[in-house]
Amino acid sequence: MSITLTQESVVTEMARPEGKKALLLVMDGLGGYRTAERGSELTEASTPNLDRLAGEGSLGLHDPVTRGITPGSGAGHLGLFGYDPLNYEIGRGALSAAGIGFELQPGDVAARVNFCTLDAEGNITDRRAGRLPTEEAAGICELLMREIKLEGAEFFLQPEREHRGLLVLRGPGLDRDLNDTDPQVTGVPPFEPQGRTPEARGTERLVKQLLDQARALLAGRERGNFLLLRGFDSVKDMPSFPLRYHVKALAIAAYPMYVGISRLLGFETHQVEGAAKEEVDALAELLPDHDFVFMHIKKTDSAGEDGDFDRKVAAIEEVDALVPRILEAGVEVLAVTGDHSTPAQMAAHSWHPVPVLLWGGTAAADGLPKFDEVNCRQGSLGRFEAKHLLPQLLAAAGRLTKYGA
Amino acid sequence: MSITLTQESVVTEMARPEGKKALLLVMDGLGGYRTAERGSELTEASTPNLDRLAGEGSLGLHDPVTRGITPGSGAGHLGLFGYDPLNYEIGRGALSAAGIGFELQPGDVAARVNFCTLDAEGNITDRRAGRLPTEEAAGICELLMREIKLEGAEFFLQPEREHRGLLVLRGPGLDRDLNDTDPQVTGVPPFEPQGRTPEARGTERLVKQLLDQARALLAGRERGNFLLLRGFDSVKDMPSFPLRYHVKALAIAAYPMYVGISRLLGFETHQVEGAAKEEVDALAELLPDHDFVFMHIKKTDSAGEDGDFDRKVAAIEEVDALVPRILEAGVEVLAVTGDHSTPAQMAAHSWHPVPVLLWGGTAAADGLPKFDEVNCRQGSLGRFEAKHLLPQLLAAAGRLTKYGA
Repeated sequence: MSITLTQESVVTEMARPEGKKALLLVMDGLGGYRTAERGSELTEASTPNLDRLAGEGSLGLHDPVTRGITPGSGAGHLGLFGYDPLNYEIGRGALSAAGIGFELQPGDVAARVNFCTLDAEGNITDRRAGRLPTEEAAGICELLMREIKLEGAEFFLQPEREHRGLLVLRGPGLDRDLNDTDPQVTGVPPFEPQGRTPEARGTERLVKQLLDQARALLAGRERGNFLLLRGFDSVKDMPSFPLRYHVKALAIAAYPMYVGISRLLGFETHQVEGAAKEEVDALAELLPDHDFVFMHIKKTDSAGEDGDFDRKVAAIEEVDALVPRILEAGVEVLAVTGDHSTPAQMAAHSWHPVPVLLWGGTAAADGLPKFDEVNCRQGSLGRFEAKHLLPQLLAAAGRLTKYGA
Repeated sequence: MSITLTQESVVTEMARPEGKKALLLVMDGLGGYRTAERGSELTEASTPNLDRLAGEGSLGLHDPVTRGITPGSGAGHLGLFGYDPLNYEIGRGALSAAGIGFELQPGDVAARVNFCTLDAEGNITDRRAGRLPTEEAAGICELLMREIKLEGAEFFLQPEREHRGLLVLRGPGLDRDLNDTDPQVTGVPPFEPQGRTPEARGTERLVKQLLDQARALLAGRERGNFLLLRGFDSVKDMPSFPLRYHVKALAIAAYPMYVGISRLLGFETHQVEGAAKEEVDALAELLPDHDFVFMHIKKTDSAGEDGDFDRKVAAIEEVDALVPRILEAGVEVLAVTGDHSTPAQMAAHSWHPVPVLLWGGTAAADGLPKFDEVNCRQGSLGRFEAKHLLPQLLAAAGRLTKYGA
């Protein structure tokens, strides 16, 4: 008989609620690449603890989306969670909301905000309002939240950082199918709000009400006297991670965006102030009540994005030093990887494959000497798309049953 | 949210018109395999220039179609151009036309011709007419072109090599859905032309007119007194390579078939007389006006097909000696590979994976010592289907933007 299981659905079918405790440790932007002149950050970092696990475990390389593609953070994490990023999308508005810890509800419509500056004719002179300070943007948000009244809907306006913010509309019958009002250039007026379908006309009118009142309220300001909107978006239908894999799942992260992504997928979440050490403390405390923990380390990516090779090396070494405490916390099976590469040479996310280490449970011992790109390309995991990592992590933890008679 | 991008469409979505100048250098039939007794052609060739690039770049192996499948030249090149050969096909008639430089137009129907010999009862005695010389076939083509008149259509009949030729019908309302007239056995008469659908009846009648007149015109000949037709085909709708990847694309080749394939995909083309050196001269001249160049070397495959190991080694070494001039021409990112393997031991195309070298731009330095099958299996590119090569080449050239928020 012909059947139609997919690589994703067979994993869900086989998942069972028993097995070892598993940790997915994501060092954001972990991967780098060697040039003829210099190694990658991982090859140069001193990582005695990860190297020991490399010898006892299996190494490989993953492509976050598919070969050649540089992923954003949303796409990168979806892949690591076993959701093919070519089939699922966390939209810009939803990510933005997640980023500031704003919990979107079904039916909400969210958009990204740029506070901008208009001249007397209403043309945009600065799309970023001189990158006005976050506190100033917060003041504008407060004013508009207090003064603007919409007919038949609530709204929330929150600052993000500098000129960026988040707008959320909440009410019956909203639709996200609206064009951006941001023309992406200066010297012209912002676009009028415009629904792309008849269903979006009501939302178009609400946005127009909001912008008209905002224009009047901000008219006296020298900078930040209007706002541009883009990426109208609503909560996405994401299959629940805990249901999909039959695990009690926890996310531990310092950055709100990663807490937010995890929450969208149905993880319990625990946010810490900042240091990786705090995350490990939380792990030790909360692991007894969970089967699966996703722990997110941001510093590796931030250093890579800043083009700071040495700081990325230091961030990796800081995590390495915490490995013994991670294992003491009761982690039985561990995957260490990144959501994408952020080579310091490029000071940006990149397309390069990302090192993976799988340790514990029934993971094979490759006997390789170091956790880095050079050894990972020799490892038994080979090179694979990120969506294949989670099934292997669950399998090593004894959480997938046999397929077929 | 559920979306439906594919591995191919995401690359098109991310492609941008800026980036480094890239060369895809295809040594036809490059791959071979080691036996217990002897190395492959690449392991035995002396290739100091490619070996230096191997150390500075990334190595891997590609499967042209999918594992175990031996590709023809059309399928092999489609894969290298990023078109999954399981989803796209350059038909036999179109390849044949490309092979002799005949430019098919939309609406044309092409078929492969075998000149054959019939006995007095009209049964086939030789499907290849004793492999009659090409000049003799050319004479037949000329005669038939001059004498045959069709009602409402033109036709073209051109010799290929020995008993092989090409038939093209041109006129309104043609349809390619016709059965072969070649029964593939001797001792029986050829099949009558037969349309498989009502739409193909008109074309069926034209082919019958043509064959009836040909039978009468060739009746006095001892060999080559009739023709068999197979692979009725028309121009395929191929997505344009330059549009798909936002590149100004040029193909440089000596053999008409590769010029033809490239032209079908929308490349500008430049045909040279023969030697690889001439191709490099053309590259130096034309690269300034292009973003992406495909350069095709035929000799490696011809030697492999002839079972001539040493001549294939020499062909590889000839290309290696040209590498410095290729780089001087201004190539910034380079992929070197074959469209399939043609091991001299087999004197035929084969299923073996094909060595790949990716150099320049943001390609990682694997530090491996030689460009051959043995080192390629250790490289960071791993083993992958050929359709994944082009995205990696574009990525290394900085021609793909970030996917997802």
